[in-house]
Amino acid sequence: MWFQKEIRLVPKSRGYHIITQEILKEIPEISKISTGLAHIFIQHTSAALTINENADPSVRHDFESHFNRAVPEDTSLYEHTLEGTDDMTSHIKSSLLGSSVTIPITDGSFNLGTWQGVYLCEHRNHGGSRKIVVTLQGE
Amino acid sequence: MWFQKEIRLVPKSRGYHIITQEILKEIPEISKISTGLAHIFIQHTSAALTINENADPSVRHDFESHFNRAVPEDTSLYEHTLEGTDDMTSHIKSSLLGSSVTIPITDGSFNLGTWQGVYLCEHRNHGGSRKIVVTLQGE
Amino acid sequence: MWFQKEIRLVPKSRGYHIITQEILKEIPEISKISTGLAHIFIQHTSAALTINENADPSVRHDFESHFNRAVPEDTSLYEHTLEGTDDMTSHIKSSLLGSSVTIPITDGSFNLGTWQGVYLCEHRNHGGSRKIVVTLQGE
Repeated sequence: MWFQKEIRLVPKSRGYHIITQEILKEIPEISKISTGLAHIFIQHTSAALTINENADPSVRHDFESHFNRAVPEDTSLYEHTLEGTDDMTSHIKSSLLGSSVTIPITDGSFNLGTWQGVYLCEHRNHGGSRKIVVTLQGE
Repeated sequence: MWFQKEIRLVPKSRGYHIITQEILKEIPEISKISTGLAHIFIQHTSAALTINENADPSVRHDFESHFNRAVPEDTSLYEHTLEGTDDMTSHIKSSLLGSSVTIPITDGSFNLGTWQGVYLCEHRNHGGSRKIVVTLQGE
Repeated sequence: MWFQKEIRLVPKSRGYHIITQEILKEIPEISKISTGLAHIFIQHTSAALTINENADPSVRHDFESHFNRAVPEDTSLYEHTLEGTDDMTSHIKSSLLGSSVTIPITDGSFNLGTWQGVYLCEHRNHGGSRKIVVTLQGE
């Protein structure tokens, strides 16, 4: 069984956001899969997807401050800065975190660990609505 | 053909460990797949999976020292430090490396390069036994 | 439907290179898949694959300079330097970016965003021809 859907996420502010429920509510078809995989792909190069802690908001806050230190918004370091100080840094952060996550499906839902959630990593100051492609497969 | 199994890894010390054989011995079913994919997923947010050099132990040692420099255990940099200096740093390192790897299956086994192995990246000082979910599919 | 092929890439200079078309020309079979996934895997530990901006060459140039700063070629920092200053740094950069990408297939082709391309991340000074394994599946 294959199922694929393009989803437009609600626009998010710059930073890290848990989107597990926003995705799940768009794919009720997952309940028909007892064993399978869910592939979630973002069609952008300045935002990313990752899996991390789903409870304490301070984790997402610390992600933002860490990546701002690790990839500093200093335009003297980059050539590609036409769209602003957050232009090239967003591309680099996005490849560090990745454009997709793949999650096991077990008994009709994501088989995540207790503390895991899917993050949208919004690196632009004004990223707008992001488009993702969810592909479900299994039996 | 689909096959899925939850595996508890033997507890590892902080650092980088090759677990290719520890996984393979749990999934003899892989021998029935001539063409397919293996998805290996860790259900934790303070440990990660990656693929890297499988021979020289100095590579794993250098991974540990690099990531300790890149994500310093300085609690003044983070809010989320309730569980110790290795708390927030473990979350960041884990998203940098990723929560899953996907490997081609060819002729009944992982189709890795000669020098490739699967690493468990244990970022906590006392991470304990980690749980992974292996999903095999193919024909 | 499953399809798998090993591809030898044309040797690339150190740096970041768009290889979307080099891959697509090797897998005309993708046109038969209306809904599916493409998994692209590199069988090396000193080069990586990622997805990023496909238009402005300055983005790839800035990737090279960022990763050279973030993972400095200072052999006093590493034990594993037998093959030169670009030895251990290439292993670390490769795990930061990852050994595979997975892309949705829709209507017979990669369903990438407008600005997305597949990058070969060549971290060695003389990496030679790199081998990748492409696995297509779908219906």
